[in-house]
Amino acid sequence: MSPDLRDAIAALGTDLSLPMMQGTQALFAERHLGFDPEVQVTEDVRYGDDPRNRMDLFRKPGVEGAPILVYLHGGGFVQGDKRSPVGLPFYQNVGDFAARNGMLGVTVTYRLAPGHQWPSGPEDLAAVVRGLRANAAQHGGDPTRIYLAGQSAGAVHVASYVAHLQFHAEPGGGIAGAILLSCVYDVATAHANQFHKAYYGEDSASYAACSTTHGLIATDVPLLMTVSEHDVADFQKQAAAMVAAWGAAKGTYPPMLRLTGHNHLSPGLSLGSSEDGVGREILEFIAAHGA
Amino acid sequence: MSPDLRDAIAALGTDLSLPMMQGTQALFAERHLGFDPEVQVTEDVRYGDDPRNRMDLFRKPGVEGAPILVYLHGGGFVQGDKRSPVGLPFYQNVGDFAARNGMLGVTVTYRLAPGHQWPSGPEDLAAVVRGLRANAAQHGGDPTRIYLAGQSAGAVHVASYVAHLQFHAEPGGGIAGAILLSCVYDVATAHANQFHKAYYGEDSASYAACSTTHGLIATDVPLLMTVSEHDVADFQKQAAAMVAAWGAAKGTYPPMLRLTGHNHLSPGLSLGSSEDGVGREILEFIAAHGA
Repeated sequence: MSPDLRDAIAALGTDLSLPMMQGTQALFAERHLGFDPEVQVTEDVRYGDDPRNRMDLFRKPGVEGAPILVYLHGGGFVQGDKRSPVGLPFYQNVGDFAARNGMLGVTVTYRLAPGHQWPSGPEDLAAVVRGLRANAAQHGGDPTRIYLAGQSAGAVHVASYVAHLQFHAEPGGGIAGAILLSCVYDVATAHANQFHKAYYGEDSASYAACSTTHGLIATDVPLLMTVSEHDVADFQKQAAAMVAAWGAAKGTYPPMLRLTGHNHLSPGLSLGSSEDGVGREILEFIAAHGA
Repeated sequence: MSPDLRDAIAALGTDLSLPMMQGTQALFAERHLGFDPEVQVTEDVRYGDDPRNRMDLFRKPGVEGAPILVYLHGGGFVQGDKRSPVGLPFYQNVGDFAARNGMLGVTVTYRLAPGHQWPSGPEDLAAVVRGLRANAAQHGGDPTRIYLAGQSAGAVHVASYVAHLQFHAEPGGGIAGAILLSCVYDVATAHANQFHKAYYGEDSASYAACSTTHGLIATDVPLLMTVSEHDVADFQKQAAAMVAAWGAAKGTYPPMLRLTGHNHLSPGLSLGSSEDGVGREILEFIAAHGA
């Protein structure tokens, strides 16, 4: 990471304040390399009955049989979108990044709490996977190579889909990999803030059953997990606990990347920008775990 | 990492067999970018009475007040050298890498077990730090910016120097940072193989006092720790346990990088090669923790 960007991110701190979030978005909006004019976007493909069950597809003309990168935005379970309401390039940046790199990019909007609580996230992802397995080929995608990626709450939804077999669209999950940017794993020990309660409810006795730690340790789905140097404190704690549980159970170090210089938001925002380290890790992961 | 290198390293496995070690060296010998002809090398500067208390200094002409990167080779406490006996570029590659990047590079040979057991490593490092604090300026180095780096047993020696205050050359340790490539932290739970026993002795009751976990968690010295995707099993376990202990004690994720595609040996061998990811992380660390 360039020293000026490193210092600018560090100066924003780790708490999810409005200045921190807007400041991080501004840093990466100005570093975004622009959209590839060749990339074709199909907007608002429905994958379920809810108005939020929509996805945008990004592909380069002529691409066939391509890996499929699906991205779920963050937003504390209660907000967020696949497109910025104020004209920032997020998260078309992710779809464009995927398409530029020879993939079918998919950005997803999903149901939100408190109207839709657990397990609306993994349920929506099951519908996404079912829809792509059935129809991605006509958009140039290889339905056997779906990679689910998410950030923060989006990562939690992806982790929940992978770890809880009852939501799988088909045996094994029907996906080739999962990418978790700044995820919460142990719902029972996570900070039960207003966002947490909006999605998981007020009854803390139900939280443990929603955790993904054991399911992720047991899964055969290839994983790429990240935690940022300047991540929110509770997310750092969660990532450390995941490494601890994985190490104790398997005697190995999990695929948990600690992203130097990044904060809670920056990894997803960085895709398609001049700060390409996270993008390279994602491309390497997909290349290493291709069919 | 390029796909061909990634696949070649993965194919070598994780065990420290002779084919794995020689194979890894061969991969990076052929990828080494060569030595900078401008770099001046001062060989075998003595820092103590033992014949192994020698270091090589690497600098570009005219460099003054430069950060100092000290590198300790690995070799299971019982072998290894700052220079390959068979003409490979290791570990002048590290000194040259440092000098190319504007630093004073220092590669160190230290006393070996079983002739010299614990705490010969941190004792030797104290002598290195004292020597550089006193004399580095005449070689273009800034004695207030010494970064100690080591790999495997070399990392253990660096960690031991940082974590055990009784070995400090001066209060605080007299260093600006420590870089631990594939380190063992908890000597008591590490696999007590022949190398371990050669250095720490046969009495396992003494091992706990040699551990560095708590000292590293408590230190103010900036740290960069790494574990490799294909690291030796016990080193993966040690790294995971370090993250667990750090997370439990501090509620944060430690500066532990998981190096995609690398094995136990490759991070140190990669410095100055076309595979520059580890080198960039080290340069960023030093830049972020400069005086």
